[in-house]
Amino acid sequence: MQAEAKTKRRGGGRAGNAIRRGTASIDQMLWHLPVNTDRPTEPLTPEGVQAVHDGAMRILEDIGIEFLNQEALALFRQAGCIVNGTNVRMGRDWVMEMLAHAPARFDITPRNPERKITIGGNHILFGAVASPPNYHDLEIGRKVSGTRAQCANLLRLTQYFNCIHFSGGYPVEPVDVHASVRHLDVIYDKMILTDKVAHAYSLGRERIEDAMEMVRIAGGLTEDQFAAKPHMYTNINSTSPLKHDVPMIDGCLRCIRRGQAVIVTPFTLAGAMAPVTMAGAVTLSIAEALSTIALFQYVRPGAPCVIGTFTSNVDMKSGAPAFGTPEYMRATQMTGQMARFYDLPMRASGVCAANLADGQAMWETSNSLWSAVQSGTNLVYHAAGWLEGGLIASPEKFIMDCEVVQMIQRYMDPMLTATGPDDIALDAIKDVGPGGHFFGTQHTQDRFEQAFYQPFVSDWRNHEAWEAAGAIGTAERAHHLYKDILATFEAPPLDVAIKEELGDFVARRKAEGGAPTDF
Amino acid sequence: MQAEAKTKRRGGGRAGNAIRRGTASIDQMLWHLPVNTDRPTEPLTPEGVQAVHDGAMRILEDIGIEFLNQEALALFRQAGCIVNGTNVRMGRDWVMEMLAHAPARFDITPRNPERKITIGGNHILFGAVASPPNYHDLEIGRKVSGTRAQCANLLRLTQYFNCIHFSGGYPVEPVDVHASVRHLDVIYDKMILTDKVAHAYSLGRERIEDAMEMVRIAGGLTEDQFAAKPHMYTNINSTSPLKHDVPMIDGCLRCIRRGQAVIVTPFTLAGAMAPVTMAGAVTLSIAEALSTIALFQYVRPGAPCVIGTFTSNVDMKSGAPAFGTPEYMRATQMTGQMARFYDLPMRASGVCAANLADGQAMWETSNSLWSAVQSGTNLVYHAAGWLEGGLIASPEKFIMDCEVVQMIQRYMDPMLTATGPDDIALDAIKDVGPGGHFFGTQHTQDRFEQAFYQPFVSDWRNHEAWEAAGAIGTAERAHHLYKDILATFEAPPLDVAIKEELGDFVARRKAEGGAPTDF
Repeated sequence: MQAEAKTKRRGGGRAGNAIRRGTASIDQMLWHLPVNTDRPTEPLTPEGVQAVHDGAMRILEDIGIEFLNQEALALFRQAGCIVNGTNVRMGRDWVMEMLAHAPARFDITPRNPERKITIGGNHILFGAVASPPNYHDLEIGRKVSGTRAQCANLLRLTQYFNCIHFSGGYPVEPVDVHASVRHLDVIYDKMILTDKVAHAYSLGRERIEDAMEMVRIAGGLTEDQFAAKPHMYTNINSTSPLKHDVPMIDGCLRCIRRGQAVIVTPFTLAGAMAPVTMAGAVTLSIAEALSTIALFQYVRPGAPCVIGTFTSNVDMKSGAPAFGTPEYMRATQMTGQMARFYDLPMRASGVCAANLADGQAMWETSNSLWSAVQSGTNLVYHAAGWLEGGLIASPEKFIMDCEVVQMIQRYMDPMLTATGPDDIALDAIKDVGPGGHFFGTQHTQDRFEQAFYQPFVSDWRNHEAWEAAGAIGTAERAHHLYKDILATFEAPPLDVAIKEELGDFVARRKAEGGAPTDF
Repeated sequence: MQAEAKTKRRGGGRAGNAIRRGTASIDQMLWHLPVNTDRPTEPLTPEGVQAVHDGAMRILEDIGIEFLNQEALALFRQAGCIVNGTNVRMGRDWVMEMLAHAPARFDITPRNPERKITIGGNHILFGAVASPPNYHDLEIGRKVSGTRAQCANLLRLTQYFNCIHFSGGYPVEPVDVHASVRHLDVIYDKMILTDKVAHAYSLGRERIEDAMEMVRIAGGLTEDQFAAKPHMYTNINSTSPLKHDVPMIDGCLRCIRRGQAVIVTPFTLAGAMAPVTMAGAVTLSIAEALSTIALFQYVRPGAPCVIGTFTSNVDMKSGAPAFGTPEYMRATQMTGQMARFYDLPMRASGVCAANLADGQAMWETSNSLWSAVQSGTNLVYHAAGWLEGGLIASPEKFIMDCEVVQMIQRYMDPMLTATGPDDIALDAIKDVGPGGHFFGTQHTQDRFEQAFYQPFVSDWRNHEAWEAAGAIGTAERAHHLYKDILATFEAPPLDVAIKEELGDFVARRKAEGGAPTDF
């Protein structure tokens, strides 16, 4: 199996002026920013869109959203919103006026400008799993608390796979590092091990400012250069229903004031933190998200914002969150319609409830990933490596998900549906004739290398050949690939002086005590 | 696990005047004919549709299709087509005139009229795996040749699951029964163990006529009643490229002359039996299918016909067929556009190349099933139980696929995307307020039982609970369910006299020697 895993295979059919980084344990698709040309699936009628919009506006106007952040309250008051204690009500005219400032698309440029991503329009980009507290791999064989070493390995996978366009939060929470300095170590690792767009948590002033500084340093940027355009992003959740806490809003305000991007993703679980009806859960999510995006646009018109969706349903039996369900898919598609209604870029996720990287994990993940495609999602968070409703990061699942994500990107290659004369291929059909075989024809030989998607973890051999090779299942094949990628991984180039400056910054901030841990 | 498997769970959110049959090892979705209201995904531009159409017509006009069946050749000659030896060329005007007779939708009524299915329009229906020569289950632990007993067990699953609307061919080929009488035994089993729409193979006069007789007897029908409307169907493939063999066309002619339905499904594997370009493979498939449907409409205008797609690509490494690939998905979607162009019902499949029921199997199968949804497919063949490119039938995969198929059917429930005032749920949102919980509200309690999809093989518990219950993976859970369903299975009611008549028919035909085996 190790031998097979190391076999070099041909790419997935893309060519052109893209870049390739890292070693070649597998021959993967080239880095590119996929364009989703499928017309979105739109379960809501125009009246349905209007009903969700009106519901969200009535929540903002009549019910109000709680903001615990004092600065936010002052800003809302200044903007003319009705602030009663921590409850903020805002008129739909003001909200829509603010939303009109938000860009429908923008770029984020990480330390390697060739890894710049475009968020919005028809682009669909994929990010690694973020924030599981636990880790599971086939070698350990059980669920364990995350460590910095595991986190770094998952960052290596994030960098390695060209189909992964950006980092999320910690791919696993390194609980072996004290919470006061954890962000320093992980962002250092992230800056060293990856050159892709990075995320930072909005968990208090120190964490988000430290992260911005480290991204600035890694990019070799002055403060003006850093603030001139987005180089990173933060992602926040609301405290559904109807509430935003202190540090998340603080972090977003800090980001947008320094020109960085924010994603606002309410977690509205139907039947728990949200109405049991999917339209109700989506409406609540939209209201919670728009309340902050309107604020950010008030503070800095044109600030790069993304509306996120994380609406799913509870398991009726256990109350646990379920993912990749029919309800999840429809909520994602409905949110896509609303994001287009507000002309905002959108974020969704690749998710599952399964406890191990087997059949259930992959049908749930496939459901969620296809609903991202169907909804016109621009950013797919957690697209690789997520298990157990986000409580476990799994490297095997990461590898398996990357196969699915690569297939989705290949699916978007216009070559597959081209209908020029050479594609219709009448001459080849005539030449081969009845009962013939197309393999030997010039038409086939000219196109063979790029014609079809080439998998790296799927095994397409017949049963006998597969059995002779050890009858190895998908997760185990993925595990071998994981070890192989780690063994040959090379970090992306980084100027020595910048690396030192990052190290010095971390040392200084650690000496200062890092960040408070009392939030 | 057995205990858990036996747990009764609530249904998937459907109610109404549907029927439920069989025992209740699991509490599954009720029988219904799902309506797919998603707008199809259409990768072809109008010009692309025209290019495929024109290519197919030029194949029929200029290259011609080989028909080995003498009766077909005589009919084509009679119709004014150009017949040279076995090569038949037909003008597009004649083809389109014939296609205009084909119904865009029709019903098939099996022995239990409550199991009537409607093929066409927005209906999407699902059938069991058909024709694998081999069987694999977790108890046997290896690939073995199919037997009548295994075949009967898979027929029990076909009957048991309400999300499966029709039988395909033999769910596994019972190679322990002599080929001359195999059709008699399996169709007898099928008539006894299921009351759903049945398929019969077009493998020579005796087999198809015996099958029609047995369906007629099982329905308690006179010949006139049988011939008055479809009660069963056959499915044929072409011998791609460009050829139709003797028995398949013979079987179809016999079916349509007795009023039964036919599905024509070319197997055009890009890079092998079809051009390496997907549009070329689809064009060839369309031409091969239309050549027969035009013939059948000439013989019996209005005959119920379905255009099938089975276009995929080879694995570039092994030459083996690959399934559930990006190329497969796009081919299915393109064929959907063409089926609508010709206003014909369409068949696609649920397929994979994987050798066991693990992650790869489920992402490949999910890809193929979602492409069926996206293409506006009316019949999804092989939707449950298929492994190894159709060479293996697996009961565990059958159970797992049924979960995915049920979720797709639930996904189509309009309740999920309803946006009436009670769905937007402003009152509930106001009542619960910031930081509250929706579980206890009247709004939730009123809807809780039907609000969300309820799985039967997915395990949505957290890792600790799942581990405490034995840490059982999806395939093993499916195996337990399989045994449990078999243990409690009850065949659908059948009049004793009809059962005897079926038995007598089988005995008589066996005494006559069954069917020749020299084809």
